[in-house]
Amino acid sequence: MSDTKKEASDFACKLPLTNSSVVKLGHGSGGKMTANLIESLFLPALGNPILNAMEDAAVLSLSDGQIAVTTDSYVVSPIFFPGGDIASLSVHGTVNDLAMRGAFPLGLTAAFILEEGLPLDQLSRLMESMKEACTRCGVQLIAADTKVVGRGAADKIFITTTGLGRVRSMPAPSVSRAVAGDHIILSGDIGRHGIAIMAQRAGLELETSIESDSAPVHFVVDAMLSSTSHVHCLRDVTRGGLAGVLNEIAQASSVGVAINESSVMVCSEVQAVCELLGLDPLFVACEGRFVAIVSDDGLRELEQLFSSNPDAWSTFKCIGRIVDKHPGRVVMQSLVGGNRIVDKLSGEQLPRIC
Amino acid sequence: MSDTKKEASDFACKLPLTNSSVVKLGHGSGGKMTANLIESLFLPALGNPILNAMEDAAVLSLSDGQIAVTTDSYVVSPIFFPGGDIASLSVHGTVNDLAMRGAFPLGLTAAFILEEGLPLDQLSRLMESMKEACTRCGVQLIAADTKVVGRGAADKIFITTTGLGRVRSMPAPSVSRAVAGDHIILSGDIGRHGIAIMAQRAGLELETSIESDSAPVHFVVDAMLSSTSHVHCLRDVTRGGLAGVLNEIAQASSVGVAINESSVMVCSEVQAVCELLGLDPLFVACEGRFVAIVSDDGLRELEQLFSSNPDAWSTFKCIGRIVDKHPGRVVMQSLVGGNRIVDKLSGEQLPRIC
Repeated sequence: MSDTKKEASDFACKLPLTNSSVVKLGHGSGGKMTANLIESLFLPALGNPILNAMEDAAVLSLSDGQIAVTTDSYVVSPIFFPGGDIASLSVHGTVNDLAMRGAFPLGLTAAFILEEGLPLDQLSRLMESMKEACTRCGVQLIAADTKVVGRGAADKIFITTTGLGRVRSMPAPSVSRAVAGDHIILSGDIGRHGIAIMAQRAGLELETSIESDSAPVHFVVDAMLSSTSHVHCLRDVTRGGLAGVLNEIAQASSVGVAINESSVMVCSEVQAVCELLGLDPLFVACEGRFVAIVSDDGLRELEQLFSSNPDAWSTFKCIGRIVDKHPGRVVMQSLVGGNRIVDKLSGEQLPRIC
Repeated sequence: MSDTKKEASDFACKLPLTNSSVVKLGHGSGGKMTANLIESLFLPALGNPILNAMEDAAVLSLSDGQIAVTTDSYVVSPIFFPGGDIASLSVHGTVNDLAMRGAFPLGLTAAFILEEGLPLDQLSRLMESMKEACTRCGVQLIAADTKVVGRGAADKIFITTTGLGRVRSMPAPSVSRAVAGDHIILSGDIGRHGIAIMAQRAGLELETSIESDSAPVHFVVDAMLSSTSHVHCLRDVTRGGLAGVLNEIAQASSVGVAINESSVMVCSEVQAVCELLGLDPLFVACEGRFVAIVSDDGLRELEQLFSSNPDAWSTFKCIGRIVDKHPGRVVMQSLVGGNRIVDKLSGEQLPRIC
């Protein structure tokens, strides 16, 4: 086997991974240049016995049970941003989507679309970052694909990750399981991810730089689901922001959502940039925050969990209740008094934030 | 529930699906325009109870066993081509990759990256085509995602599909299981897909138009695997062509591959265009052809299957043997006599053919 490998590599055109090297169309050919890119750049970072086998499909042994499946394309621009990059984001986002159904990741797939001309050192940095994110999340890549398109036919790199997870909490939390009387818990302050990206795009020079909140939440969610069976709904706050998530819950569960503006945390830097750019933090994406809808019993059990390690859970806040009134709508009691309907935005506030 | 839905839709900005409508950045916002695009275009074509729930992840119940997982991005240009389009191709390609591990599809995920300006009627045609392909393949979409990027940041549409399948033949066929003495079966003539695309790109006017061979092969593969347990390896002939696939098998199994040029079918139209464009059909992609590596017993059992319905299997040909000699190499006995080494190409012969 090793002899063959050696022979094969004698024929291969080696990738000189210098700073001036870039992705070329030939790297997407399925020929030697593709093999070389995979062997010299992707596998050293992301390889494992399943991926290294380079089969048409990975084969996993699973035992009886419920499996969660999710897919997302990541097209964020810029590809490197304060607090993260497109590669770690693609891992966190997919692991988090699994967690929202009470599932722990079994494996990820990743499909890369590369633009001709992407510097190989940037690609290499991204693969290192993806490796670190996978390690942090305790998950491995089980299948991958690489395509290359010409200059101007993509923007540097797009990554599509699909996650496969084992559902550990049954019935799985669902966007349609919120009922009147439930409490709405938000896991942290909102808006850091979207504002970190916008601030970098706009070239804003701020005294303190805002970093993306991009992070995996599945360990925290697993602790919550282990401590109570009364979590009805989990949803991570991404595109569309907190307003989008709460509207989706209100509509899918046919319930009203009532929140208090004073309970929704927004850090002062995010608030300041939002004011500067005319944005409402309720609509700004996060990538490491989620909403949990829990019953009275659930809240009591979570409070016990939270009290065991108050520092770890200090960012969690009850921000409101699920109500019978105004089904399908989100209503916020504002800081200045009075209620306002928080609708979904129509179009795009911040394009390509994930 | 219906009241809520009605209320929600009162707020929504309806998509006027006329020919002049195009994808806008707002369709990727996660707000109302996204919801509207999904409800008016994606779900009518591809919806089912799992997808319609619009959860962060789909949940499936699985029984004990082996699951195959594969992912691929499709970036083919043009997006409509003789005999297919990017959407049906993305379904066939993924179902076929599952079949190559002896797996029957349980579900697909699809992630769409749309370029601002893509005409909605084209998107609609693609979704109809995807629906038909899913129906033909007996598979449904279980999770999906849509992103929109600005003009010039993608090329019309990219689709990433991930397939999940139940392995029905164990041990699963593998690229590393070929052994000396095995027979090499090719399921049909080669090169139609790549040449159909190249001919359209080059604007070649031919008397007979070549159509892509894009098609699902999993029903045929299932019949083969039901009739014999001696299929060691299956690999579909895509990027890199027959030469690429045979080299991958030779290298992964540390064996030699010996084929006869006279047994490899190439239709006269494909041959003619290859000569015109200076291409070698051995390196041209197919999207509905595969190679099966089978033992003597396997070949005997397959011959019984083939004899039961000779018309259905008439395109299947033995094209050579796995040998002890020249491990890691593919050697072809050519039509004009003599042997030549068939190596993988270094770079790109036909960019963006899948």
